[in-house]
Amino acid sequence: MRMTALAGGVGAAKFLGGLVRAMDPGDITIIGNTGDDAEFYGLHVSPDLDIVIYTLAGIVDELTGWGIARDTNRALEQTQRLGAEGWFRLGDADIGTHLLRTEWLRDGVLLSEVTDRIRRRLGVRATVIPMSDEQVRTKLVNTNGEILDFQEYFVHRQHADEIEAVVFAGAAFSTPAPGVLEAIREADRIIICPSNPVISIGPILAVPGIREALSTRREVVFGISPIVQGAALKGPADKLLPVIEVEVSAYGVANHYLDVCANFVLDYRDAPDAKKIEELGVQAIQLDTVMETPEVAERLAKEILSA
Amino acid sequence: MRMTALAGGVGAAKFLGGLVRAMDPGDITIIGNTGDDAEFYGLHVSPDLDIVIYTLAGIVDELTGWGIARDTNRALEQTQRLGAEGWFRLGDADIGTHLLRTEWLRDGVLLSEVTDRIRRRLGVRATVIPMSDEQVRTKLVNTNGEILDFQEYFVHRQHADEIEAVVFAGAAFSTPAPGVLEAIREADRIIICPSNPVISIGPILAVPGIREALSTRREVVFGISPIVQGAALKGPADKLLPVIEVEVSAYGVANHYLDVCANFVLDYRDAPDAKKIEELGVQAIQLDTVMETPEVAERLAKEILSA
Repeated sequence: MRMTALAGGVGAAKFLGGLVRAMDPGDITIIGNTGDDAEFYGLHVSPDLDIVIYTLAGIVDELTGWGIARDTNRALEQTQRLGAEGWFRLGDADIGTHLLRTEWLRDGVLLSEVTDRIRRRLGVRATVIPMSDEQVRTKLVNTNGEILDFQEYFVHRQHADEIEAVVFAGAAFSTPAPGVLEAIREADRIIICPSNPVISIGPILAVPGIREALSTRREVVFGISPIVQGAALKGPADKLLPVIEVEVSAYGVANHYLDVCANFVLDYRDAPDAKKIEELGVQAIQLDTVMETPEVAERLAKEILSA
Repeated sequence: MRMTALAGGVGAAKFLGGLVRAMDPGDITIIGNTGDDAEFYGLHVSPDLDIVIYTLAGIVDELTGWGIARDTNRALEQTQRLGAEGWFRLGDADIGTHLLRTEWLRDGVLLSEVTDRIRRRLGVRATVIPMSDEQVRTKLVNTNGEILDFQEYFVHRQHADEIEAVVFAGAAFSTPAPGVLEAIREADRIIICPSNPVISIGPILAVPGIREALSTRREVVFGISPIVQGAALKGPADKLLPVIEVEVSAYGVANHYLDVCANFVLDYRDAPDAKKIEELGVQAIQLDTVMETPEVAERLAKEILSA
C-alpha cells in the first residue's frame, strides 16, 4: 500500500511515528508544511519538516516535540551574551542542520532536494517533500491590524494575540514541489494528519493544485481530527478555527475538509459528532486519537490502515 | 601612556595578554588583521579579531589559542553527519559570535562597530579595531599556480604547500577603519606584535595609509621578532618570509620593518643579530620573547614599556 500523508509539526510527527511502525516506511510519502519556515540569523529554518524528520530519525527531543534530543544551546547563549534577543530557541546540533540547509539553498539546491538529502542522511526511509520549493510564509493579522510573522506569533508571543486573519504570503504564486502531485495521484491511501487545519494543513492546501488534486482522490483521503472534546490537543487550533469560520469540533474540521476528504477519524470521546459527520456524506471512524504514547500512535495508524 | 598595537592571531594575543596586565587596558588600541577573515556556511568569521578578543576576555581555549574554552562542537558534527566536509572547526559558542556578527554586517553595521560591540559585551577594555571595514582577503599562490584562500592554505592544507606569492586581494582599494590612523598618530608608543610579518602584519601594512602613518611615527614604533633562532615560534612564518625575500631571522624582520620601526625587540638567544640590527639604525632590545607563560608575556610587556 502506497501511503501519502499531509503533515504539520508535532501532532503530525506523533502520528507518523506510529505509521512507520504500522507499515513499510519506504511506502510512505509525507508532504510537509513550509508556511512556518523562517530565517533566523540568516539561517533557513524549516520547523515542521525538521520535526517530522527528527521524529522519524528517532533523534527528536521528546520533551518538546521539536529540536534534537540532549542538544546544547551554546550558540544562542553566546548571541545573547553579545546582546541579541533570545526568544527563538535553536539547539547547537539543530543549527548544524540549518547551516547546511542554508548553504545548499544558497548554492541553488531546491528545498525539496535539500530535504531529501537531510532525511536520507538521518536514515529516514519515508520520503519527505516540502509542499513547495517556492517561499510561502504564513502571516497572522491581529486585531490591532499588525501583521505578524508566524514564529513571532507562535513562539515569541506564545500565540496569545487575538487573530483576525491568516494569510499565506506567496502561496498564490507557488507550485507544488516535485513529487507532491504524483504522491497524491498515485497513493492508495492519503492521510491528513491531526495537525492544525489553519496554520499547518492550511498552507499546504493553499498551494495551487494540491487541494484540486486531493479532491479528485477524496474517496481515499482520511482526515484525523486535531480537535478532541472541543479543544486542540496542542497549539492554538481552537483559537484559529473560528478565524476561518470553522466550528471548533471534530465535525467542524470534517466539514472544513469536505471537498478533499471522504473519511474522517474522530476521537471516540466525540461520539456525538460522528452522526453529524456521516450526514455530510463522510465516513466517520471513531478511534482513540490522543497519542500519549508511541503505542497509541501505532495502534491508531494500524486501525486507520485497516479501516 | 597611550599604546597602539598591530596584531595578528595567537602570537599577538599572547603578548597582548601580558600587555593588559602591564598597563591600563583602557589606554590600549589594537589594530587587528582581517586578511584571514572568511565565510563558512555564510557566517562571517574573523579569526584574528576573535583570538585577540577571546584572549583578552579570558575565555579563549588555551590549548589551541583560538576558539572558546570548553566549547562543544555539535553544530559542525551535525553538518558532517549530513554530509558536509569537516576541515574547518568552529565551536558552538563561537558560532554564536559569528551568527550575530554576520547578522549585524547584513544589517549594514560596519565590521569596526561590530567588533567594538563584541569586545565591549565580553568585557574587554582595550579597544580593538579591524585594519579596515572593507574586505581584504589574503590569498596564497602555490608552486602549481593554484590560488588558495587563506583558511584553505592554513587550516585545510596545514600550510604544507610551497608558496610562490602572497596577495592581499582588495587591499589596494581598502581604507583604514575609523580610528586606525588616529590610533597610530596619537599613540605614545606603537607595538608590532610578534605575529607573522607576511600574513598577519602584512595585510595590515597593505591597507593604503597605514604603512605611511607608521613611518611618520617610526621613532616610537617597537617591533617584536616572531623569529627566534631562525625559526617561527608558531605557524609558517619561516616558510613564508623567503617568499617575500626576507631572511628568516630577527635581523631579517627588523630590516623588513625598517621604514616603520626604529626599535626592535629580539630574543636574547639571538644576540648576534642585535649588532646587525643596530647597524640598520634600529635600536635592538634583547629580551626573553618566548612567552611560555602569561608571566613571561607580562614581563616582556613591562620591559618593552620601560625600554
